[in-house]
Amino acid sequence: MTIVPAIGRLTTRQIGERAQAMIDALSVISADEDALTRLYLTPEHRHAAEMVSGWMEAAGLSARMDAAGTVRGAMPPAATGRNSNKVLLIGSHIDTVIDAGRFDGNLGVIVGILAVEQLRARGIALPFGLEVLAFGDEEGVRFPVTLTSSAVAAGVFDTKALDVADEKGVTLREALIAFGGDPERLRQEAYQRPAVLGYLEVHIEQGPVLERAGEPLGVVTAIASQSRHRIRIRGEAGHAGTVPMEMRHDALMAAAEIMLMVEAIARKGKKHALVATVGHVEVMPGASNVIPADVRFSLDVRAATDEARKAAVEEITLFARKIDKRRHVVVGVETMMEKGVATCAPRLTKAIAAGVGAVQGKPARSLMSGAGHDGQSMVQLGDFGMIFVRCRAGISHNPNEWVSIDDMGVAVEALVATIEELGRQERAGR
Amino acid sequence: MTIVPAIGRLTTRQIGERAQAMIDALSVISADEDALTRLYLTPEHRHAAEMVSGWMEAAGLSARMDAAGTVRGAMPPAATGRNSNKVLLIGSHIDTVIDAGRFDGNLGVIVGILAVEQLRARGIALPFGLEVLAFGDEEGVRFPVTLTSSAVAAGVFDTKALDVADEKGVTLREALIAFGGDPERLRQEAYQRPAVLGYLEVHIEQGPVLERAGEPLGVVTAIASQSRHRIRIRGEAGHAGTVPMEMRHDALMAAAEIMLMVEAIARKGKKHALVATVGHVEVMPGASNVIPADVRFSLDVRAATDEARKAAVEEITLFARKIDKRRHVVVGVETMMEKGVATCAPRLTKAIAAGVGAVQGKPARSLMSGAGHDGQSMVQLGDFGMIFVRCRAGISHNPNEWVSIDDMGVAVEALVATIEELGRQERAGR
Repeated sequence: MTIVPAIGRLTTRQIGERAQAMIDALSVISADEDALTRLYLTPEHRHAAEMVSGWMEAAGLSARMDAAGTVRGAMPPAATGRNSNKVLLIGSHIDTVIDAGRFDGNLGVIVGILAVEQLRARGIALPFGLEVLAFGDEEGVRFPVTLTSSAVAAGVFDTKALDVADEKGVTLREALIAFGGDPERLRQEAYQRPAVLGYLEVHIEQGPVLERAGEPLGVVTAIASQSRHRIRIRGEAGHAGTVPMEMRHDALMAAAEIMLMVEAIARKGKKHALVATVGHVEVMPGASNVIPADVRFSLDVRAATDEARKAAVEEITLFARKIDKRRHVVVGVETMMEKGVATCAPRLTKAIAAGVGAVQGKPARSLMSGAGHDGQSMVQLGDFGMIFVRCRAGISHNPNEWVSIDDMGVAVEALVATIEELGRQERAGR
Repeated sequence: MTIVPAIGRLTTRQIGERAQAMIDALSVISADEDALTRLYLTPEHRHAAEMVSGWMEAAGLSARMDAAGTVRGAMPPAATGRNSNKVLLIGSHIDTVIDAGRFDGNLGVIVGILAVEQLRARGIALPFGLEVLAFGDEEGVRFPVTLTSSAVAAGVFDTKALDVADEKGVTLREALIAFGGDPERLRQEAYQRPAVLGYLEVHIEQGPVLERAGEPLGVVTAIASQSRHRIRIRGEAGHAGTVPMEMRHDALMAAAEIMLMVEAIARKGKKHALVATVGHVEVMPGASNVIPADVRFSLDVRAATDEARKAAVEEITLFARKIDKRRHVVVGVETMMEKGVATCAPRLTKAIAAGVGAVQGKPARSLMSGAGHDGQSMVQLGDFGMIFVRCRAGISHNPNEWVSIDDMGVAVEALVATIEELGRQERAGR
C-alpha cells in the first residue's frame, strides 16, 4: 500500500467541490472535442483509468488495472478479526455513451474515492477490506455486449463474448489486448464469493423522482426486471379515399389500441413500479393516402418484480390477441430480451437507509432503478446495494445531465455513514 | 371525318374481349420492362397516344392531339337541330403511376371508343356531337402538379405550372414542347362552356364496395371533398426505465388517442361517406428505450360534402386541443391541401342510373369517389357524370389490379345506354 498524505477532514460542501473538480477533470477526456464520448477500451478510457488510478493512490488505495480494464483500488482492513479477510466493494463505471453527461458512472467512482479519503481523514477503522472499482463497460456502446468488466469481476463473464466485434470489426479480444488487458486471465480476475461482503454503488438517478420529492438521495430496492418485445401487426393496405371505414383492416388503428392498452396496464401497476414504453414505431407503406398494412413497434416493460412484469406482458399479449380477432388483423408479439430483477440485499438497503437518513435529515426514500447498472452483474457475486443521487429534471445520457455540488457532498457523506454502519454491524458479529 | 368500316354489332362478351385486347395492347407500352409505368409527356405516353388515336380513327372518330398532349377523337352530330352545336365529352387518362395496374384510366378511354363503335354499329344517331378524350396527366407522378391535361380542356389551367420541373429538372413547358405540344396554345384549347353538354367518365372503382355488393357497375354521386393535414405532437423525452408513468408526457400515447378519435369520428360519418386515414407516422427519437418526445403524422379526410369533411376536421382538432391540456403535450394541426367536392350533375347521374340499371338488371348503386379524377377539372366546365366499374378486391395502383372481361363489356353497354338516354332527353327538348 502506498502511503499518501491524508486530504484532511472536509466539510460536506468542500467534499462536493472536490467531487466537482474531479467530475470536470474526467469530463474533458473524450474522443470528441465538443462532446463527452468515452467508449470501452479506447485511448480515452485508458487516459481516464490512469487519472482515476492516480486519485486512488492519492487516497491511500493501492491501485491496479485488472485483465478486463477495470481499475481496482484496494485498502486492507484496519485490524485482523472475524471479517478481516472480507472485502467491501464500491464501484461504478468510467465509460460513457456518445455525447454523454458528466455524472453518469463517473460520479459513483469519484464518490467511492472521496469516501475512502474521508474514512481515512476521520480515522475510521474498518474491520474489513475495501476496494473501489472503476468499471469500463457499463454502457455497452462500443460492442454488442455490455457489463463486460463487472461480469469479469463477478465471475459470470461468458468468454464467447470475446469474439464480438465493434463497428470497425475489432473484436473484444483484440481490443482488450491492445488496451493492455488479458483475455486469457479474465477467469482468474473473479472475486471469490466467500470473500465478498457486498457491492455498493452510488449512481445518479437518471429519473425525476428524487427531484420531485425534494430529496438529494434515495435507496435503491432493486434494478428492475426488464424485457423488450417487438409487436407486429399485419392488416390490409387500401386507398385512403376508396375503402369505407367499416371495410378497413387498418394495422395502425390496431396498433394505437394496443399502445393505449400498454399505457393503461402500466399505470395500473404503480405499486410494482411497472413502466412500459413504446419507443420505436414503423408504419408501412407509410404514404399519407394509403391505409397502413403493416405496423411494427417496440415494447419495453420494466417492474420491481419479475412476476409483475411477466403479468403485464401477458395482459398486453392477451389484449393484442383480442384486437386480432376484432379488427381482422394479425398480431405477433416476440420477446427480444428478458432480464430478471436484481434485488438489493435488505442488509445493505437497511444500512444505506440509515446512512442516507442520518445525512439528509429525513427518512430515505426507496425507489427502483429502471435503468441497468453494473449491480446486475455484481448481484450474482453477493449482496448488492445502491444509492441514487438526484439529478436535474431526471436528464441523463445528455450533456445537460447535472448534479449539484451539495448533493455530491451529501452522497459522499451518506456512503461514509453506510460503510461505518456496516463496520458496526460486522463488529457486532452480524 | 375518316370513313372506316364499322366493327359490327357485338355481344356484351365480345365487347369485353375487345376491351381486354386493347387493355393488353396498351399495357406493354411502358418505361419499365417488367412493370407498367407511363408518365406524362414521355415517349411511352406518345406511343400510347398514337395507338389510341389509331383506334379512334378506326371507330369513326376524327382524332387529333391537342396542345397539352390529350388525344381528342370527335364525331359530329347525326343531324342538325337544337343541340347539334353541342358536344358530349367522354374521357379518362392514359398515363399511369409507377408499377401500375392496366385498367386505371386506360379502361375509361377504351370504353369510350368501344361505345362509339357500338353506337355506330347499332345505327344510333345522336342529336349532339361526341368527343372521346384521352388525357395524359391524371396521376401527377412526373411533375408536382396534376390534372394538367383536363385543366387545359376545362380552361382552368394555371400557366404558372409550366415552370414546375420533374426530378431531372425538365420543366413542364420544355416537356410539352419536346412532346409536340404547345405551351403557347393551351388557352385556346379550352372548350367553350355553352358548347359542352357534359363530361362522362368510366373508371375502375379502386375500392371494394361494388365487389362486396356483387354489382359490376355503380353511379358516382361526387368526387369527395378532400383535405390533407399534418399533426405534430411535442411531448417530453425520457428514459423508458426511470420515468414513472404518471410523470410522462409521451407524445406517442397522445398520438394514439388522436388516431383512434380520427377513426371514431370517421365511422360516425358514414352517411356522408366520411373516411379519414393516418398513413404516415414518424416517432422521434425512435429508440426502444426512450419515451417519444415528438410524433408527426399525416391525416387525410374525405367526404361527400365539404361541410361534413370540415366538421370532421374541426372535431378532430378540438379533440387534439383537449389531449393537449390533459397530457401536457403541445399539439399542432396544419392543413396542407384542401379540395372542394366535385358534385356530379343530377341530370347525368339519372341518365347513368337508367343506363346502368337497364344493363345490369338491378338498380344502380350510388357511391362517392374517394379518389381524385379528371372530373375535378371538368366539373368546372360543365355537368359531370361518372360510372364506376368493379375491380377485384378494390386493388388499384398495383399490378394486381383486375377487371373481368364481362364487367368491361357491361361497362361499354351501360355507357352506350347512358348516351342513348341523353340523346332521348335532348330530343325531348330537356
